[in-house]
Amino acid sequence: MKILCVNAGSSSLKFQVYEMPEEKVLINGYIEKIGEEDCFWTIKINGEKIKKERPLKNHTEAAKVLIEELLENKVIESLDEIDAIGHRVLHGGEMYSKSVIITDKVIKDIEGLIKLGPLHLPGNLAGIAAMKEAFKDVPNVAVFDTAFHQTMPKENYLYPVPYDWYKEYGVRKYGFHGTSHKYITTEMKKRLNKEDVNLIICHIGSGSSIACVKDGICYDTTMGLTPLDGLMMGTRSGSIDPSIIEYICKESGMSVSEVTNALNKKSGFLGVCGKADCRDVEQLYEDGDENAILAYQMYTNRVAKYISEYYLELDGKVDAIVFTAGVGENGPMFRSKVLRRLNALGIYEDTDSNNKIARFLSEREGKISTDDSSVQVIVLPTDEEIMIVKDTYELVK
Amino acid sequence: MKILCVNAGSSSLKFQVYEMPEEKVLINGYIEKIGEEDCFWTIKINGEKIKKERPLKNHTEAAKVLIEELLENKVIESLDEIDAIGHRVLHGGEMYSKSVIITDKVIKDIEGLIKLGPLHLPGNLAGIAAMKEAFKDVPNVAVFDTAFHQTMPKENYLYPVPYDWYKEYGVRKYGFHGTSHKYITTEMKKRLNKEDVNLIICHIGSGSSIACVKDGICYDTTMGLTPLDGLMMGTRSGSIDPSIIEYICKESGMSVSEVTNALNKKSGFLGVCGKADCRDVEQLYEDGDENAILAYQMYTNRVAKYISEYYLELDGKVDAIVFTAGVGENGPMFRSKVLRRLNALGIYEDTDSNNKIARFLSEREGKISTDDSSVQVIVLPTDEEIMIVKDTYELVK
Repeated sequence: MKILCVNAGSSSLKFQVYEMPEEKVLINGYIEKIGEEDCFWTIKINGEKIKKERPLKNHTEAAKVLIEELLENKVIESLDEIDAIGHRVLHGGEMYSKSVIITDKVIKDIEGLIKLGPLHLPGNLAGIAAMKEAFKDVPNVAVFDTAFHQTMPKENYLYPVPYDWYKEYGVRKYGFHGTSHKYITTEMKKRLNKEDVNLIICHIGSGSSIACVKDGICYDTTMGLTPLDGLMMGTRSGSIDPSIIEYICKESGMSVSEVTNALNKKSGFLGVCGKADCRDVEQLYEDGDENAILAYQMYTNRVAKYISEYYLELDGKVDAIVFTAGVGENGPMFRSKVLRRLNALGIYEDTDSNNKIARFLSEREGKISTDDSSVQVIVLPTDEEIMIVKDTYELVK
Repeated sequence: MKILCVNAGSSSLKFQVYEMPEEKVLINGYIEKIGEEDCFWTIKINGEKIKKERPLKNHTEAAKVLIEELLENKVIESLDEIDAIGHRVLHGGEMYSKSVIITDKVIKDIEGLIKLGPLHLPGNLAGIAAMKEAFKDVPNVAVFDTAFHQTMPKENYLYPVPYDWYKEYGVRKYGFHGTSHKYITTEMKKRLNKEDVNLIICHIGSGSSIACVKDGICYDTTMGLTPLDGLMMGTRSGSIDPSIIEYICKESGMSVSEVTNALNKKSGFLGVCGKADCRDVEQLYEDGDENAILAYQMYTNRVAKYISEYYLELDGKVDAIVFTAGVGENGPMFRSKVLRRLNALGIYEDTDSNNKIARFLSEREGKISTDDSSVQVIVLPTDEEIMIVKDTYELVK
């Protein structure tokens, strides 16, 4: 069975085709700058990389390019070989705690959630519409980035703000990166050979969130109403004194939207030391740059702090702390500094094994804590696409 | 030596006269609703309580009432018996890390900080002006609520926001309740008979903050640019996803000031369950009210979470966790629920002793952790007034 995986942003469309249940990737594509003059796309197939460019007006035209590439590269010989399409959808609100086959009602529900994901959901919906048009009669599945977190108890998802804001406007913690946290949880269940795992999963990339998994389901997470909440990230502040917004509006004359935009795009690493990418910050750190050292301390401290909070939430009964995503998988220095902060919990770094694990090093995964640590710490690469495809496969097979 | 202690708000003036160095309170007064028709004041002297009312236009008229009461109640026979006046001042910015004798420059500096404390500093300044006018040639001392926290390292006081916001507008963590945290630190140094104490001080009242004291000085604290940061409080949200502000502005049509005001005055306990006072919430909790149970869990969880963060910051080397202020001193149920959450750190409640300590019970202070706990937990009443008076005494004696 061939399944197409689609991740459509406002001006981009990522896609893969998988052979299932073998989990084999047949093609990998990324169309960027849809709607702009300099639109282009890259295709990876059989270890080869191809780049093409041509202006594409919208997601419908992007879908045509997608089909063109599938046929041209002989991934399929005719459209009916695609058995199902899985879509990454940012937000499922409180309605969707699982992936679902997309019906007209599902589309209407997602449209109703646009206020909660104004930057992402219109793109997601455009991707769904384009695929429905291009592949008639093929089932489409929505895999929500919030779904995994819907099991959080109310005391963890509610904010201490006027209760009306929850009832009337849906202000609560939804959490994001759910597909990644679910993938790691599923993998760890297999590896630990039990269902009721207690995990602290650190998905640390340019966007970052930590999930606390209790008895095999999500119990808490750091991202909230939006992905701005929680940890300090590449360009995002994470949670701060909410008074800062009114204060900066008054002092600088910026609007609340401009300030919120700055908290999303000009803060975090970028705000403190001028670089957003963790590797660039590490380079500056090595060069002795004062603000980079400061930013790196702030960044790693915040990760350690949330781990300690979730350690308490799990009453110290933690099966594993897992690092994943860009920085989590490939940042030995980052992981080392976080682990140093966890010594008080009886958790110690195995320096040798930590220094071996990264995309550019000898290992891609493994244990990085000493054998006598109170909790084992694991590096495990995430795979959101395979999670989307597996959910899709389960719903349509 | 007689020292007058003044805490002037925008429409109130609290005062005490102390005999020093005996630390004896001679009189206690509280003038409320200054500038309003129903202005009144209460005086406590020799175990007696007196209430009077009369409209007072401003702080200058309030100062006259203060003098009237001191003379009438024979605390002094003439004004020159007051040797110094200590003022509580909300904000000392980055300039003041200690209490100082108030000069014209100090007043100018405080005026320059009004943007950081617009609700409190004008009242503080009015109090200083009124006392300078009423008691000519008597030294006035400013005791800043932020001063104790000025020893925080930069990685703890900086927010991960655009660095310009710090340089141009002073956006950073200042911390508040400093006078209380300093009092507890000073007392604990005496009791533990060492200077380099490591403490986690939980000042939990209608406003709440936790301070992390490392080697005898402040290392971190939960309140930030303003007292809205950090913990959930009686009516304040504490730190939340900063996106909530823009979202509520858009959805409800409220302005950023209205939303920030709601986060200060209609959130926290009040927002979640309709009552702001911890005792009222506990009553509803006992009655089985769902939102009160929820609010209480959220409230105590957040205290435990910050304790765990500071436990890490102190690398587990904590001399004591101290509970103080209204709820901290008088809330056995609150303390019990927080301690339950700390079991993973090896900290356990001594139920018997915890249940004995409160204003209305047999003890006012003591240890509430079991002997085999990894860290001792202490209840210790705070006394901000004596701290103000002592600082004043030290500067003028």
